[in-house]
Amino acid sequence: MSLLLTEAERNGLGDRLPDWTVTNDCKAIERTFLFRDFNEAWGFMNRVALVAERMDHHPEWSNVWNTVRIALSTHDAGGLTNRDVKLATAIDALMA
Amino acid sequence: MSLLLTEAERNGLGDRLPDWTVTNDCKAIERTFLFRDFNEAWGFMNRVALVAERMDHHPEWSNVWNTVRIALSTHDAGGLTNRDVKLATAIDALMA
Amino acid sequence: MSLLLTEAERNGLGDRLPDWTVTNDCKAIERTFLFRDFNEAWGFMNRVALVAERMDHHPEWSNVWNTVRIALSTHDAGGLTNRDVKLATAIDALMA
Amino acid sequence: MSLLLTEAERNGLGDRLPDWTVTNDCKAIERTFLFRDFNEAWGFMNRVALVAERMDHHPEWSNVWNTVRIALSTHDAGGLTNRDVKLATAIDALMA
Repeated sequence: MSLLLTEAERNGLGDRLPDWTVTNDCKAIERTFLFRDFNEAWGFMNRVALVAERMDHHPEWSNVWNTVRIALSTHDAGGLTNRDVKLATAIDALMA
Repeated sequence: MSLLLTEAERNGLGDRLPDWTVTNDCKAIERTFLFRDFNEAWGFMNRVALVAERMDHHPEWSNVWNTVRIALSTHDAGGLTNRDVKLATAIDALMA
Repeated sequence: MSLLLTEAERNGLGDRLPDWTVTNDCKAIERTFLFRDFNEAWGFMNRVALVAERMDHHPEWSNVWNTVRIALSTHDAGGLTNRDVKLATAIDALMA
Repeated sequence: MSLLLTEAERNGLGDRLPDWTVTNDCKAIERTFLFRDFNEAWGFMNRVALVAERMDHHPEWSNVWNTVRIALSTHDAGGLTNRDVKLATAIDALMA
């Protein structure tokens, strides 16, 4: 099982994942993505789905038209772990 | 532009769309779908995406692993219209 | 029903769709797309799928890992029509 | 690296994968799937894509409207291996 990030590790996330925000309860990170239209948003979501399935770690996410909001948390561990950091990093790489 | 459903039409939705619920503010209908796993949920969402794009009417929806929650509302009209009923009917047909 | 492109129109495709090739029988146009990996190829294919469904005109296409080959033809008309040109143009726009 | 199936193993595929055909050169297996329409075919293909990405083993496949043709082969090994059998089995399970 994955270990929860320590407070120091959580505080360091701003450097590694500058576009993500730690939620107030410190249990998840989230990022909102804006696209040109639904078509572009959906292409992105399909890429994220493949990454998530490959890592066997899935987002809580929502979509409205051109907007995709992704929250990452490790339920088994009750909060943020390195699995969330890895998935967020891979998602960011899709945008590069 | 689409017209808002009348109160009588909204009250009649229970017959046509028995698996959907009108939200408290009467401005949307929603339904939650449960699948075996992410794979099955994602296949379904891709089918809904095609239907939505074809109708040019898109859902507000979220996914966590095997669960998909869909809310339908017509933003231009400020509430429920026949476009929502049509999309909900088409989504239900995917499950048949 | 859509009309077949004339020979003059077919000959003019090179200007409008420089990345597409008219097949030897003059009945289809095709283009091969190369991506970084399957993930990027699949995101693209999902975007094409939405465009195709919206236009109600679907490609003959194949995929191997990072390669997507798309052929467009209008079966009802027995060859190339303006519907193929429109879909090819929309697919090209996804790559821009 | 995966080992090529022996001739005996290939001959036994008919029992395990009755809907798949070994190609004449014995280097691949293939199956054609028919769906109601493009929508249903595309939902299926997205499910196969997730399975393939998870197994890190990808099909050679093509689609025309409601038809999906899948060929499986292990290029690194120069023919059929157990990876193809596993992916075919997982694809069949999606149809159950």
